[in-house]
Amino acid sequence: MAGLLHRRLRLRTALRWMSPLSTASPPAVVRTLPPGFSSSLLQTPRPGSCGVRCRELHAGEERPAPSPAAAPERRPFSRVTPEDLAFFSKIIPGRTITDPDILEASNVDWLKSVRGFSEVLLRPQSTEEVSHILGYCNSRNLAVSPQGGNTGLVGGSVPVYDEIILSTALMNNVINFDSVSGILSCQAGCVLESLSLYLEDRDYIMPLDLGAKGSCHIGGNVATNAGGLRLLRYGSLRGTVLGLEVLADGRVLDCLATLRKDNTGYDLKQLFIGSEGTLGVITAVTILCPRKAKAVNVAFLGCESFEQLLQTFQLCRGMLGEILSAFEFLDRECMRLLNTHLKLANPITDCPFYIVIETSGSNPTHDEEKLHKFLEEAMTSSQVIDGTVATEEAKIKALWSLRERVTEALTHDGFTYKYDISLPVERIYQLVTDMREHLGNRAKSVVGYGHVGDGNLHLNITSPTKDPDLLASIEPFVYEWTARFQGSISAEHGLGLKKRNYIYYSKANLAVALMGNIKTMLDPKGILNPYKTLPDNLQ
Amino acid sequence: MAGLLHRRLRLRTALRWMSPLSTASPPAVVRTLPPGFSSSLLQTPRPGSCGVRCRELHAGEERPAPSPAAAPERRPFSRVTPEDLAFFSKIIPGRTITDPDILEASNVDWLKSVRGFSEVLLRPQSTEEVSHILGYCNSRNLAVSPQGGNTGLVGGSVPVYDEIILSTALMNNVINFDSVSGILSCQAGCVLESLSLYLEDRDYIMPLDLGAKGSCHIGGNVATNAGGLRLLRYGSLRGTVLGLEVLADGRVLDCLATLRKDNTGYDLKQLFIGSEGTLGVITAVTILCPRKAKAVNVAFLGCESFEQLLQTFQLCRGMLGEILSAFEFLDRECMRLLNTHLKLANPITDCPFYIVIETSGSNPTHDEEKLHKFLEEAMTSSQVIDGTVATEEAKIKALWSLRERVTEALTHDGFTYKYDISLPVERIYQLVTDMREHLGNRAKSVVGYGHVGDGNLHLNITSPTKDPDLLASIEPFVYEWTARFQGSISAEHGLGLKKRNYIYYSKANLAVALMGNIKTMLDPKGILNPYKTLPDNLQ
Repeated sequence: MAGLLHRRLRLRTALRWMSPLSTASPPAVVRTLPPGFSSSLLQTPRPGSCGVRCRELHAGEERPAPSPAAAPERRPFSRVTPEDLAFFSKIIPGRTITDPDILEASNVDWLKSVRGFSEVLLRPQSTEEVSHILGYCNSRNLAVSPQGGNTGLVGGSVPVYDEIILSTALMNNVINFDSVSGILSCQAGCVLESLSLYLEDRDYIMPLDLGAKGSCHIGGNVATNAGGLRLLRYGSLRGTVLGLEVLADGRVLDCLATLRKDNTGYDLKQLFIGSEGTLGVITAVTILCPRKAKAVNVAFLGCESFEQLLQTFQLCRGMLGEILSAFEFLDRECMRLLNTHLKLANPITDCPFYIVIETSGSNPTHDEEKLHKFLEEAMTSSQVIDGTVATEEAKIKALWSLRERVTEALTHDGFTYKYDISLPVERIYQLVTDMREHLGNRAKSVVGYGHVGDGNLHLNITSPTKDPDLLASIEPFVYEWTARFQGSISAEHGLGLKKRNYIYYSKANLAVALMGNIKTMLDPKGILNPYKTLPDNLQ
Repeated sequence: MAGLLHRRLRLRTALRWMSPLSTASPPAVVRTLPPGFSSSLLQTPRPGSCGVRCRELHAGEERPAPSPAAAPERRPFSRVTPEDLAFFSKIIPGRTITDPDILEASNVDWLKSVRGFSEVLLRPQSTEEVSHILGYCNSRNLAVSPQGGNTGLVGGSVPVYDEIILSTALMNNVINFDSVSGILSCQAGCVLESLSLYLEDRDYIMPLDLGAKGSCHIGGNVATNAGGLRLLRYGSLRGTVLGLEVLADGRVLDCLATLRKDNTGYDLKQLFIGSEGTLGVITAVTILCPRKAKAVNVAFLGCESFEQLLQTFQLCRGMLGEILSAFEFLDRECMRLLNTHLKLANPITDCPFYIVIETSGSNPTHDEEKLHKFLEEAMTSSQVIDGTVATEEAKIKALWSLRERVTEALTHDGFTYKYDISLPVERIYQLVTDMREHLGNRAKSVVGYGHVGDGNLHLNITSPTKDPDLLASIEPFVYEWTARFQGSISAEHGLGLKKRNYIYYSKANLAVALMGNIKTMLDPKGILNPYKTLPDNLQ
């Protein structure tokens, strides 16, 4: 195939130009602050006049009042007492953490954009322990912030005030894997990449993959209905998650079925998928895993326009059909940031748009033939102007890193305003263009990348420092633009703390009111991940 | 490929042995009664002493009291008055039906196993009309039985007493189809087969297919979370349904998104998928449709044992991989019924087990090569002892009819007790064997068929006439057996009227109680499809 490709494409080895070798994981939590981020925010806060280390300090910094993203008033939950700590220490001896240094990493999100002031971190190992903890917290009216790998991007995974952090980090056992059906059962704290490695040894893969795989927990993935890079092929977690074990008031809701089909009553687990820990704490998951492909190819291509990129997508779907497993894009600005901040080189000619196409199939010869025919057609019709293909694992990883490390490159570019938008696929880049025009030279960078196959744009805007004026220019412009085309203001990141009040741009009043009823039904005291997901009028 | 196959398989033309040519649709509602079904049940009932044509008459016949399937007492809903009829006639002139002859078909289910005594059938054409009707029914406390194509198998689609029948039959317009994304928006009353034909012209297919496609409505499919023949490849409706428009108390809950990804709050539409009309009436659906395959092949194979069938399934998944679109089975007893009652001939050697394998792919040559290699391997290893392959559409349909018409053949064999069970795939036929042994010669036929790929067995037991003693031998044996292996007592048919009280075999008490809370929240007066899905203690 390489010979054929050489006729039309400048086929290069992917590793030659890639330095340093990328990893698919996000960087470990960085202690140095990104430019524009006030260091005072990360200092241990003084107790506020309300007697608790107080969220308002940060909220005022993060969004100028009365921005809808500013945290609401602390609700009248109980405060943790020495007696509470004694109780927890009895249930989970040695795993009730109050050391401020250890707590720091759990109080601050991955982006270092929000922080809470919790003084207790609990690390249960079993469902039974979680049950005891939540039963107690309910009876004591103590608020709880469930936490997985803390890789969320909307401030949903850290406390806002002094909520108890309930970490799933020590609940990381595989319960069972059935190699006939491909159904995996595991505890919620299993790291996605660990599960992927576990399954690869057994000729299966996880049905989801995302940049944060080295840190994120499967429980968090399910709680946020994570999308990622394989959704195009294997569908959403709503189809692949077969069962959940969930706790709210301490009682175990066992929906941990290991069946592909079950129509006995309402599908309760769906309520918890994507509820961001506000309805219950997921303690175990069963998930349907696809077979590992015998052949994987990755092509990195360049296009002159977004219209050509869309034509390539259509051609690709027709010609690659059932072996297409990803169709991702990044724009020229993303490539510039990868070059500048991560020293990743562009493996092909400079282009306005780049595509990452992945195929996964059961027959290497067939897949190569399909891919070759597609590439030849794409080049002949001038939809694609340059490209490179990788079939070896290391080279594939290197090509993928150009897409996966954009988020990381952005953190080095300045303070980043992040938007995760669903739109009809033909509209997705128009938002980037319109935003650039709208902002003029007020932003440092305005970049677009994401999952073309899912109609999901990641729009990111950077600024040398946090800039309330810039923010006021972006919002509500971005939400109004999205709503005008019936898009979603959060495709896969969720609402968390940061986006909770923008829900009405994508959901009707009646729908939001109904969500409030569901919250009241499942968590009547509202102790589970308060101030998140639902708008302030329903908190 | 044919030449290669001839070496190992006796390849035959599928049409030669098939008479009459099968259709994939279920038969039209048959007016003659199946054996063992008392004709008195279908006569116009006399008003009972309670002043309403009374369900108990039939319930007593259908299940001996105190069988859990017997309908509970009529709840104190209002009765339809002349004033109500005048109101409906004003909203939907000419579409408020009270003619008993027309009502008959809507009062009796497809299997003629249950009947209601409704005196009003409403046929709205728009969401607005449904809104008016439901708002009125809520205010008047009038019970409503929503009805699609009335092809359900658990008595969920017909009234139990005098509930108003709300039919979606005239809500059958396609709203929009986006040929770039493959997203279809349509009204709930579109017939599945009509949608399939509409999409085929546009090079797409529906993500679901089932025997009842000629009659069933997409709204009913979604309301019952229908599974069917393509679930193995395209996943469940929980992944492919992108949006719903639903009404309960007259207010329109608009969740009719046309986006692949949307994480703004709880996914409310999931509550209505599979709720069998008990939480709301679905009026419109958006659904993600796969591209039409350029090549489809069907193989009909025979195995000596269920173990060999399972080995064939594993081999097939590995070798056909991404082009495998169905793996179905039927047993020798099913074939006997097809021969006897429908005069369908067996195209291969008599075997204990038969498999239908379908491949769908984008490259005919590649697909044939994969299929051939698989068949050669399966024959060499003696997993498969005979088989035939079809690539032409008519022959493919004929082979498929051997699987799809088993249900129809059963209706001619006698009174049929139907069970739709999910189990770990290696267990599914053990239930049939154990049931045969358990029943001895008390049953006429005990047959097993279904969706191997999904771990879904259709266990059917016939008897010359309705036989309470036989029923008492089957139940709760079948449910206890299923529960012992953590199976589901309804994989895809739902619970409806017939199975509602068996929910506890598959769901924990806490889960069922929560379902009751959801019902109360969404339908506080309980007017929507009463006596269905939830057990009597929560009605």
